[in-house]
Amino acid sequence: MASATTTDVADRNPAFVLRAIRDVSFEDRPVPKLRDDYEVRVHVAQTGICGSDVHYWQRGRIGDFILTSPIILGHESSGTVVEAGSKVTNLKVGDRVAIEPGVPCRRCDYCRAGTYNLCNDTIFAATPPWDGTLAKYYTVASDYCYKIPDHMDMEEAAMVEPVSVAVQICKVADLRSNQTVVVFGAGPIGVLSQAVARASGARKVIAVDISKARLDFARSYAADETFLPPALAQGADPVVHSEKVAAMIKDQFGLGEGADVVLECTGAEPCIQAGVFVARKGGTYVQAGMGKENVTFPITTACIRALTIKGSIRYSVGCYPTAVDLVASGKVDVKRLITNRFKFEEAEKAFELVKAAQEGVFKVIIEGVQG
Amino acid sequence: MASATTTDVADRNPAFVLRAIRDVSFEDRPVPKLRDDYEVRVHVAQTGICGSDVHYWQRGRIGDFILTSPIILGHESSGTVVEAGSKVTNLKVGDRVAIEPGVPCRRCDYCRAGTYNLCNDTIFAATPPWDGTLAKYYTVASDYCYKIPDHMDMEEAAMVEPVSVAVQICKVADLRSNQTVVVFGAGPIGVLSQAVARASGARKVIAVDISKARLDFARSYAADETFLPPALAQGADPVVHSEKVAAMIKDQFGLGEGADVVLECTGAEPCIQAGVFVARKGGTYVQAGMGKENVTFPITTACIRALTIKGSIRYSVGCYPTAVDLVASGKVDVKRLITNRFKFEEAEKAFELVKAAQEGVFKVIIEGVQG
Amino acid sequence: MASATTTDVADRNPAFVLRAIRDVSFEDRPVPKLRDDYEVRVHVAQTGICGSDVHYWQRGRIGDFILTSPIILGHESSGTVVEAGSKVTNLKVGDRVAIEPGVPCRRCDYCRAGTYNLCNDTIFAATPPWDGTLAKYYTVASDYCYKIPDHMDMEEAAMVEPVSVAVQICKVADLRSNQTVVVFGAGPIGVLSQAVARASGARKVIAVDISKARLDFARSYAADETFLPPALAQGADPVVHSEKVAAMIKDQFGLGEGADVVLECTGAEPCIQAGVFVARKGGTYVQAGMGKENVTFPITTACIRALTIKGSIRYSVGCYPTAVDLVASGKVDVKRLITNRFKFEEAEKAFELVKAAQEGVFKVIIEGVQG
Amino acid sequence: MASATTTDVADRNPAFVLRAIRDVSFEDRPVPKLRDDYEVRVHVAQTGICGSDVHYWQRGRIGDFILTSPIILGHESSGTVVEAGSKVTNLKVGDRVAIEPGVPCRRCDYCRAGTYNLCNDTIFAATPPWDGTLAKYYTVASDYCYKIPDHMDMEEAAMVEPVSVAVQICKVADLRSNQTVVVFGAGPIGVLSQAVARASGARKVIAVDISKARLDFARSYAADETFLPPALAQGADPVVHSEKVAAMIKDQFGLGEGADVVLECTGAEPCIQAGVFVARKGGTYVQAGMGKENVTFPITTACIRALTIKGSIRYSVGCYPTAVDLVASGKVDVKRLITNRFKFEEAEKAFELVKAAQEGVFKVIIEGVQG
Repeated sequence: MASATTTDVADRNPAFVLRAIRDVSFEDRPVPKLRDDYEVRVHVAQTGICGSDVHYWQRGRIGDFILTSPIILGHESSGTVVEAGSKVTNLKVGDRVAIEPGVPCRRCDYCRAGTYNLCNDTIFAATPPWDGTLAKYYTVASDYCYKIPDHMDMEEAAMVEPVSVAVQICKVADLRSNQTVVVFGAGPIGVLSQAVARASGARKVIAVDISKARLDFARSYAADETFLPPALAQGADPVVHSEKVAAMIKDQFGLGEGADVVLECTGAEPCIQAGVFVARKGGTYVQAGMGKENVTFPITTACIRALTIKGSIRYSVGCYPTAVDLVASGKVDVKRLITNRFKFEEAEKAFELVKAAQEGVFKVIIEGVQG
Repeated sequence: MASATTTDVADRNPAFVLRAIRDVSFEDRPVPKLRDDYEVRVHVAQTGICGSDVHYWQRGRIGDFILTSPIILGHESSGTVVEAGSKVTNLKVGDRVAIEPGVPCRRCDYCRAGTYNLCNDTIFAATPPWDGTLAKYYTVASDYCYKIPDHMDMEEAAMVEPVSVAVQICKVADLRSNQTVVVFGAGPIGVLSQAVARASGARKVIAVDISKARLDFARSYAADETFLPPALAQGADPVVHSEKVAAMIKDQFGLGEGADVVLECTGAEPCIQAGVFVARKGGTYVQAGMGKENVTFPITTACIRALTIKGSIRYSVGCYPTAVDLVASGKVDVKRLITNRFKFEEAEKAFELVKAAQEGVFKVIIEGVQG
Repeated sequence: MASATTTDVADRNPAFVLRAIRDVSFEDRPVPKLRDDYEVRVHVAQTGICGSDVHYWQRGRIGDFILTSPIILGHESSGTVVEAGSKVTNLKVGDRVAIEPGVPCRRCDYCRAGTYNLCNDTIFAATPPWDGTLAKYYTVASDYCYKIPDHMDMEEAAMVEPVSVAVQICKVADLRSNQTVVVFGAGPIGVLSQAVARASGARKVIAVDISKARLDFARSYAADETFLPPALAQGADPVVHSEKVAAMIKDQFGLGEGADVVLECTGAEPCIQAGVFVARKGGTYVQAGMGKENVTFPITTACIRALTIKGSIRYSVGCYPTAVDLVASGKVDVKRLITNRFKFEEAEKAFELVKAAQEGVFKVIIEGVQG
Repeated sequence: MASATTTDVADRNPAFVLRAIRDVSFEDRPVPKLRDDYEVRVHVAQTGICGSDVHYWQRGRIGDFILTSPIILGHESSGTVVEAGSKVTNLKVGDRVAIEPGVPCRRCDYCRAGTYNLCNDTIFAATPPWDGTLAKYYTVASDYCYKIPDHMDMEEAAMVEPVSVAVQICKVADLRSNQTVVVFGAGPIGVLSQAVARASGARKVIAVDISKARLDFARSYAADETFLPPALAQGADPVVHSEKVAAMIKDQFGLGEGADVVLECTGAEPCIQAGVFVARKGGTYVQAGMGKENVTFPITTACIRALTIKGSIRYSVGCYPTAVDLVASGKVDVKRLITNRFKFEEAEKAFELVKAAQEGVFKVIIEGVQG
């Protein structure tokens, strides 16, 4: 049995559970035990809601991950260590941490090669069949918890998760200082990718979105320029339209042959197409957004222009520490993204709000169980 | 005016000219003059015919390159230096050479960055408005001519061009020793890519094609394994079918999660799709074949599996020297690919044969003007 | 407690133990138990002797690793799985395996980044305080055991260890097809690096050593060319001499400005210097050999020529599987390297022979405990 | 003959000439003519003085470059285009430009591979036998002149040269966002490397120098932290001392196992040694400073820690444009580095000042010939 240090008297563990599609409830779950001597138990402080949480709630499935039994929701969390296994060296009881929600197997070729985001056996919070973090307590491997500095608050620490997604996107893009970057999407991941690109020394960051309000925010946040694409004219060829949109972006912002780097954070077919067309010869395009499984894709352009097209998924080694640093140093201001706050007991209301997808609602966060 | 050394008495320059779509003829062209002191004039010895030559002949256009005035055809050539500009140091009159058919501007950002295959101002043989090599003489920058060793013959030297295309494909793939490689296509570029992959230490090379005869050749040439995909069942979803084909390939050849590297040398939509599906997570897919401009593409799979998808076009620095070495060392046997030989005067017959695309016709080569 | 499957009745575990400096003996050690459900116990079949084994025997120390209590010697081993933990999926009892001797912590930044060879907490066989493989049994994480094909024998499987060292050296060098490679040293690691370079499609492999006999072997094994450097003339400046040796190598083998890649497998100061001088501008030099801690080094040349100089240590992800493939496919013939074979009971004699460093003794191997 | 556009009436070309070692004078040189249609003639506006200029003046030699006949000095210059060859498309008469002082041959393997800084046939200003920029006029290939925005002044444009050196150093280091960077040297190249590292999103930049005044400036400029190494105690081993200095730096700034990236901008032996010791395992060390040809070097540490050690020399593709952007955007403030300004007629006084190497003198700049 695992041995551990704790100052915590844990008698109950309220949890927000997805029982079945569109069926959530509060349950009293057993206080989770450390699975081995390297784990910590965290008293969860704040949890952001992500589109994927809502997706499981409404549809019970993302790709091969299918809800077959109840799971606790939530995976963007911060908290305080209340119990530490006997072999934990990087943390101690009382430390305030950001929690990386996916712990890989450490033994497969992907893990051993440093690409743990590709591990098939990752335990990922709130991905069936694994419980998430919307409970009083969550246990996790200590090396997937990152101590935050004193001046960072728990909301900021919860927001480290989406910042890490953006860090991975820029890492996959192999972003270098002084590159021009076009980012499709000005939702949370889009604007954070813009912010990370700017913090990485990008020469010019251009945000593209179909919402004027989101573009206005992006402009005030980290984008140097914004672009609102014109609507597709009736009867027009969608791919030809996408190529025209790309030409307009190049022209308006003096990109010449195109952008050095394109970050696609929407998954929308017209953005994917315009993204390929807007990259310069030899440029890099990163697919981070997810929408339709298959799209009409300008493959000949990708070939002739010798593009590098890469997929970005989750986060890999170094993303969480970098994200903590970016937030802690003020290079990325995550507080401005949080538009709505809820108590733990109001979790369902919070989920309803995210589902409604109103323009003014950007990032919704739920406070943990007190006491 | 350029100064030069020559032992050649050049009084005429017969040329095989594409005058307009489907209209070729033999013409007596002026003997080309060196454009500067760094050029050489080559007496062309052998010229392979490529699909793009036939394409211009039949349709007068590839992408933005449009035939508006007559051009000499041909771009896969070898020959003997008969005149050398006064500043040429790497070659002398009498040297036998393989000719790289595209000479870039040397001044744009692409050229200066070492990606001269992307230069917008390349002078490329037989690409409108530039004349090709199917004439007695061709003038070209001396650093784009590569001396061949004595034991290589002129046919082999002409075949250095398609070998260079394959070298570039493997270079774009960042191919490393001991990787598993699936190559779609067993035409000339496909089998040469298989041969270059094998010469680069690939662990296993799998050829995929819809022609059993081509696969049999591939197996006898450089492929370790071959795969003939089943036809699409009536009413079946093409993308689902492509995914099944990929699963069959993985299963039959023990690829586990998929191939390390996929080289797509057909441009056919089902191959593109199957190619994406057959790559392992984190694997690399290179688009080298060209067919439809736009295809239905499994973008979500590319994203989730964190693939790297790259386009390969022409050749870049080092490809020609490597191709010469591969042929000279016997690692790539190009003689076996040549199925049909023609005299210069029979050039049109040679083009007709390539156009007919019979199964037994692989690589067709035209001897240069004698004397 | 770990659960496991086994068909083995293990009542004793003879071991060859280094008790103190220059003090070895045979001991009956307890049969080692699986430390967790992911481990296997291997009945050791063959064990190669490495210079480091002899070094610990004679001096009790390499760098920060100091012998303070007895350890079992040996780390280049093959064997048969006789017990498998309940969570082992890649192996089963009866499988014949090559054993990777270092199992990292899996939790530090190095491990998570895919550079497990840098892990500070690796359990490495026969490196104090860890026991080695020169015993009847050895327990090890199952993902650090690699099943070998039926046609590979146990001697070949033991030799996978030095082949893996060579694979790592070539990986660190980022070796590409058709490069020129100069390898300093024609001992076991040197000739194996030459063989791996050749199997990776090197254009030319040049071996440098001060033993004519070793060079003769290298030439018959995997080197295209060999070079025996002249002795340092009395009173000559050693660095100037090294630069001259480099110039001779470039000249004799037509390397022009120098080699694309230099692999230094001796650690000898003159070789290090000549290696830096023999690399072409922009070329790569890998330090794999270890000798004096500090050497006189031509740093200005390294700077002006924009060299990339890298250290190679142990092996990282993919090296063992690649090494197994290279041996299994016959691309690297390790049997020819084995010059001397000993029974387990003759282990000390085997060590004495390696210590004597006679010219005819190349690789010495010790058979495991029978029955 | 080259054809060109010009509005300039150029009747004389005063020049500051190095006639022999320690022998400079003003001469009236012929107005230089465009060598081809791609060149421009620039009326030089400002020229910074660099250590190498002084070196040629005092010693007549750097490496293989030896003064054998008089050359015009100066290579860090800005100016206005007064004549443009007929094929120049990127510039027109009247454009204000920063001049990249080295124009490579464009034809060798280095040039074609995108590593033009390694070209053996580069025409480099004020490097024997090539004239420099300390004259009224300088002619240069137009693609090696970079138009500056209106708000940049000519002093800033001249300072683009040392900024480009720093950009190349960071490029060679493959610097990524959020890395820890230790920079040895707080002279012009040192502090500019610190500034470029910071603009590239470095997590922490630590400056090391033996001058407290320089460190104070560095701290106020772009360094997050500074370190003044203790002097070598009498009788102490220099390498052991360097290792201690490295340990002090790691300890004082919480670098743990060491810095991600080390930029060595001094060429001083103790800095080189401390730099190797201060890099973390798997870290990168760039040699940019030049001092003694050969130094005592901890090669075993470099090997065991799997360091990547690279030389940086001059600048390569993209450095000048990036440097212009960094200065234009205000990310790098070069005005603060200029401590002394001279008229053209005072050039020798300016050189004397740089030679004197007083602490308060940082960057000295000479105004061009007026009118």
